[in-house]
Order: sequence, then structure tokens, then C-alpha cells
Amino acid sequence: MLKECIENVRKNVPLVHNITNYVTVNDVANVLLACGGSPIMSDEPDDVEDITSICGGLNINIGTLNKSSIEGMYRAGAKANELGHVVLLDPVGAGASALRTNTAVGLMDKVKFDVIRGNISEIKTLALGSGTTKGVDADVADAVTEDNLDETVKFAKDLAAKAGCIIAITGAIDLVADGSKCFVIRNGRPEMGKITGTGCQLSGMMTAFVVANPDAKLEAAAAAVCTMGLAGEIGWSKMQEGDGNSTYRNRIIDAIFNMDGETLEKGAKYELR
Amino acid sequence: MLKECIENVRKNVPLVHNITNYVTVNDVANVLLACGGSPIMSDEPDDVEDITSICGGLNINIGTLNKSSIEGMYRAGAKANELGHVVLLDPVGAGASALRTNTAVGLMDKVKFDVIRGNISEIKTLALGSGTTKGVDADVADAVTEDNLDETVKFAKDLAAKAGCIIAITGAIDLVADGSKCFVIRNGRPEMGKITGTGCQLSGMMTAFVVANPDAKLEAAAAAVCTMGLAGEIGWSKMQEGDGNSTYRNRIIDAIFNMDGETLEKGAKYELR
Amino acid sequence: MLKECIENVRKNVPLVHNITNYVTVNDVANVLLACGGSPIMSDEPDDVEDITSICGGLNINIGTLNKSSIEGMYRAGAKANELGHVVLLDPVGAGASALRTNTAVGLMDKVKFDVIRGNISEIKTLALGSGTTKGVDADVADAVTEDNLDETVKFAKDLAAKAGCIIAITGAIDLVADGSKCFVIRNGRPEMGKITGTGCQLSGMMTAFVVANPDAKLEAAAAAVCTMGLAGEIGWSKMQEGDGNSTYRNRIIDAIFNMDGETLEKGAKYELR
Repeated sequence: MLKECIENVRKNVPLVHNITNYVTVNDVANVLLACGGSPIMSDEPDDVEDITSICGGLNINIGTLNKSSIEGMYRAGAKANELGHVVLLDPVGAGASALRTNTAVGLMDKVKFDVIRGNISEIKTLALGSGTTKGVDADVADAVTEDNLDETVKFAKDLAAKAGCIIAITGAIDLVADGSKCFVIRNGRPEMGKITGTGCQLSGMMTAFVVANPDAKLEAAAAAVCTMGLAGEIGWSKMQEGDGNSTYRNRIIDAIFNMDGETLEKGAKYELR
Repeated sequence: MLKECIENVRKNVPLVHNITNYVTVNDVANVLLACGGSPIMSDEPDDVEDITSICGGLNINIGTLNKSSIEGMYRAGAKANELGHVVLLDPVGAGASALRTNTAVGLMDKVKFDVIRGNISEIKTLALGSGTTKGVDADVADAVTEDNLDETVKFAKDLAAKAGCIIAITGAIDLVADGSKCFVIRNGRPEMGKITGTGCQLSGMMTAFVVANPDAKLEAAAAAVCTMGLAGEIGWSKMQEGDGNSTYRNRIIDAIFNMDGETLEKGAKYELR
Repeated sequence: MLKECIENVRKNVPLVHNITNYVTVNDVANVLLACGGSPIMSDEPDDVEDITSICGGLNINIGTLNKSSIEGMYRAGAKANELGHVVLLDPVGAGASALRTNTAVGLMDKVKFDVIRGNISEIKTLALGSGTTKGVDADVADAVTEDNLDETVKFAKDLAAKAGCIIAITGAIDLVADGSKCFVIRNGRPEMGKITGTGCQLSGMMTAFVVANPDAKLEAAAAAVCTMGLAGEIGWSKMQEGDGNSTYRNRIIDAIFNMDGETLEKGAKYELR
């Protein structure tokens, strides 16, 4: 199943419109190319409607939002909804500032999302209207662990049902849920947290996966998470003495570039709850 | 001849002002350094005139244009023209949105360019006022092939004559034309399309080459295309098992860094038509 | 002493708010992660006060300033001062344009900085109100050499006393001074100038070092300079045939990632004047 998901990306070459932060945008573009998609970036309000119209999906990441790009997010979201395109929200730093929280909540109100992907602190902020996000990383107190897994799976499913979209919570354990099913995924490496933007990269790639698999959106979102995590494992296995986070970043993108369906199917570590 | 072109870049260290997209800007800067130039980036309308005044050339790339940077493009272009500096236009995504098409066409109207460099779909958009650009990549239907080469060479020369500047159309086969001559270049690798921004990188580098070779602008533009394509070949030859597009990106820039005149002269594959 | 400085960064994981240029921002983020800090970027005026409030330090880099981000710099600086946070200024291109010079001078007037770090041309511009900056690199005529070292050390100390903050002047020889002491540092490689943004990276890292060492700010700023320079030396020692500035960039960040206190203490080359 995961195999088909990535193969459909490579076959269909989904064009993804990204309104994303300038910190990690280059890696997002290269990851989209690595997985078989095609990226285009545009945040100018007067440009986004045309651009999103020629794409299959829209990835909205609020990482370095500004007044102009926020307007771009709303306009692109409305147009993408009108055209029935896949739309994903990455609420970077929701809970860390009023503007970010309000933008994410406001977007959820006005735009119909297919997927919301964030760390547990960001997602809790969206669910509860408050949060303890420490910058762009999840608060340790929020971490998804084996101990709180049952309740967090329930939280993810409930929020997915309420929000009417897939909820992807990524961290040491990743959850990808709709209202009734939840993938619990255990791929990845803790060292991925030492690279800026693996979450942003995943959001871009996940948009491509969901666009290319319209009849299996939940599975496609889970496949993207497994691809990223497995690439993190493969990339780490190639690290040599003296290598650090910069080389690791390259190796992860390289591993996505080389990922085939069999490798993904075999390496994916997940259970359904 | 190509040899002298790159050697002049390394000797003269041309300072290039870039108004370019935030997706690939870091690679543009590192490629400019790799080839022997020196980059500076500025898009704020109140900053660009001073900045472009201390430079030798101006590279305008509309990849992630916004209202403010568009104003910056016009103001920088006017100042660069006033000072007789080399100015290059990279019409990223012209044809993909009205704003991009209008901005590129409007810039061509107000600013005297020395070179316009884009893919075939973008350049057709500028020539015909319409296009079928699919995002930031050329439409397959537009591709320059051996079959349509004669007519595309003619198209490039005619546009160069009409626009009064060098036209560089890059893709599987690259064309660099003025009104009477056209370099047909066959360097490069198809895998370069799997890296974001090789076109943007080329535009930055081409600006430096033209600045450093004021008496041989056409040859300099062609030399930049050969340098990029040959670096793509050299970089690819160094790829090892497990390497992907991220490592390939690094290897191409590295190959530009190490390119000397002899290697370029020997490796360049071009004919004049 | 340097040993403790870097170990405190790794122990305290300082969260650093960066208002920085979009050219080198990804490398700044990865260097902050490499040294043990944690980065967050935000330049929107309505976002920066909340973001800086949750951080320990603020790194203001004027590299691709615009009207909106300039307002963000002032508002973030004021809030950081109110909260007693560490604030660093990197006056990229001061002297190259009126807007950059005026912004840097204006920020120095309104914001209390702990450190100002730039190349000699930028720092001279701030001190003298004029300069001969050629783009973002120091003018050769300004270079700190063994011949003018005594007077430049005096210049740095005097400016530090007058501005009431640490002055870090980086180049072939680096100076890190307060009003009474000056570290003269001879780490680094000339080839680091062939990578875009090593200065920006250092500013981000230096902010983290100073935040994590509140009782030894001068030593911490010097330790950051030694770390960067030593990483440049270690990275260079790993270069293989065919490697260039792109790979070198990765190797420097990798070397920071792997830097431990002992290596830093042993490899640092400095004297106190």
C-alpha cells in the first residue's frame, strides 16, 4: 500500500504550490523534487490564485509569516478549495505567538484543509486554543510517549473528526489519524531534530503524496511520514566520521531521492490503531 | 575563447546585485562565489539604487516576486541602465500567472536588458504574450529538440533582434543568440532538473560572465551556459551509490568552483549557427 | 575557559530569535543547531515581540532588510531590551547604502546591544559615520593586518567603550573587544570567504554563546569566533579532490556539530591584548 503511494507520486509528478517560510524553503523544494513531485513557491496575494490554479495541491506553512503572505494564504486557500485541490496546513510556531496562533486558527476557520501537520504542541494549540510551544519545537512536557500513546491517539482521532481532516502529529512517535483510524509510526531518528526544517520538508512531501493518491489520502499521508522517517534512518546509516547535521541534511534528501516502493514497504514501521 | 571568459571572471571578481527569489538565493550566492564573482542581494526599493550603484551587474529574477520587490526591480533596473551596467532578466514562471507575465513584459518595456535567460516556455511567453508554462518548468510540448532546432534558433535570433539583447533559452539543448549568431550548446545532464534552481544559478553566473567580458557579451553568456552544463556533467560523474539530488547540487557548485579555462574549453560542446 | 563556553551552549540550549537575511538563513539555523542552540526566525513586526519574549537572545542581521523587517528589528530590539535579553547586531553592508548605514546607526541609537559583529569596513562605517564597504565584503584597504594591528585593537576597544558593548571585527585576523580587553584571534581559513554567509552564521552562533554564558560575555563571543574559525580549519582539512565551496560549507557546519570543549580549547589560537 505504501509502495503504491510513493509510486503514484513518481508517476503523476504532482505540482505543489508552497507558501512557506524562507528558512527551509530550498530544502522543501529539493525534497519535493526528490520524492517525484514538482515545487512552485509564491506568496504574493496578487500571484497566488493563478499559481495555485495550475497546481494539484497547496502547502501552507506559517513559519515566517508576514501581513502580505498571510493574505496570500487566505486567497490561495480559497482558490484551492474552489478548485477541489488538496490543501495542507503546517502551523509552525502556533502557540509561540498570538499572530501565529490566530493565523492558524483563522485559516482553519476559512479554508477547508485535507491535512494539518505539526508537532504535538502546535496541534494542541489548535485543538485547545492555547499551548506551551517553546519556539518551533514541541515542548518536552507534550511529547508523545508509549505512556500517553492511547490518549494521544484518541486526541488525534477526535480532532480529525472535529476538524474534518487528517491530523498528522510528528515527533519521536508519529500519529496520522482521521476520525476512525490512526497510523502509529516509529520510523525516524532523534538526530533529525538537529536539522532545521525536517517538519517543513515533510509537509511539502506529504502534500505531494496526498495529491497523487486521491483515493487513499490517509495512507498517502502516512506513507509520506514513513518515507521521511526511513530516509532519516538510511541517511544516518551512511554517516561517516566527521559528518554532522549539514551532511545529514543532504543524506536524508538523497535517501528520499533514491527511495523505491519496495524499500519503503519493507522499512516502514507502523501499526494501525 | 570560453577560456578567456571564465578567466576574466576570476580576474575581475565582478560584483553582482541580485534581486532574486528566496527559494534558490543561497545557491545563487554560492555559485557566484564559485565562479569567481561576488554576490550581493537587496530587493527593498529604498536600498536597491545604492546597492546596484556599487556593482557591475544586476540580475533580476522574478521567482518569488512581491509588490515591494517588483518596485525594487524597476528602480534597480533604471539605475543600472543609467550607469551602463549589465542587466539580466530571468522571467521565472512567466506564463504561469498574469502578475509574472505582466512584470516580465513590463520590465522589458522599461529596462534595457543585456540578456534575457529562461526556459523555452517562459521565453515564448515573452515573445508571444502568451504561454503554456506549467509552473517553473518548461512545458514538454515546447521542448527544444533536434527536430525543431532550426526554427527555434530562428525564433531566438529574431527575438534577440527585436528585443535588442541576448536571448538565452536553456533546456536539454541550450541556445544563446543575438540577432545574427546563435550558440547551440549540448552540455548538461537531464538530472539537473531534479535540483531546484539550476536556472537561477545560471542567471547569476551569466551576469558575472557578461560583466567581466564587456567586449564579448554573447560569448560570455555562452561560456556561462557551458560552465553550468559541464559542471553538471562533472558533478554527475562523481556521484556515488546512495547519492541523490541534494549531494548532486553540492557537486555541481563544487565543479564550478574548480572549473579552469582549459577544462571548460575542452569540455564545452557547442556549435555556432 | 573556551571549553566551558561551548559546553554551556550545549547544556543550556539557548533559544535565539533571528531577524536575518533570506540569503543565508538556512545555514544560520543549522549552525545554531550544530553548536547546541535552537533557532527561531520571525521578522513580521506584529510577530516579533511575542517570539523574542520566549527566547534568550536576539540576533539582528540587516542583510536583506526591508521596510517591514526594519520595523520588526526596532520592535524586537525594544522588547528584548525590556526583558534583559542578549541582543546582537550584524550590520551587513553598512556603508554600502544609505538605508543600511542609517538602519544600523538608528538601531544602535534605540537598542542596547550586547555585541556588534561585522567586518572592518562595516564597523568603521558605524564608528565614523562613513565607509568604503564594497558590497558585503570588507574593503581590502581596510583589512586588519599585523602592521595595523595595534591601532585596530585600540580602535575596537575605544568603540566598545563608547558604544557600551562588545565589538567583534572578523576577517583574516579577528578582534573581540570590550573597553579594556581585546581577544586577537588567528583561527580560520581564507577559503571561508568563498562561502556565502560565514559571517551571518557566526553572528547567530555568537548570540547563542553569549546567552549561554551570561557571566563571561566577552569570552563567550571570542569562543564563538574561535569555534567558527577552527571549524573552518577542520572542515578544510577534510576536503578531497573535486570538493569546492559547497561541500566546504557543509563540512564547516559538520565540524561545529562535532566540536567539543577539548578540541576548541586546544585548537583556539588567540592572545589577549
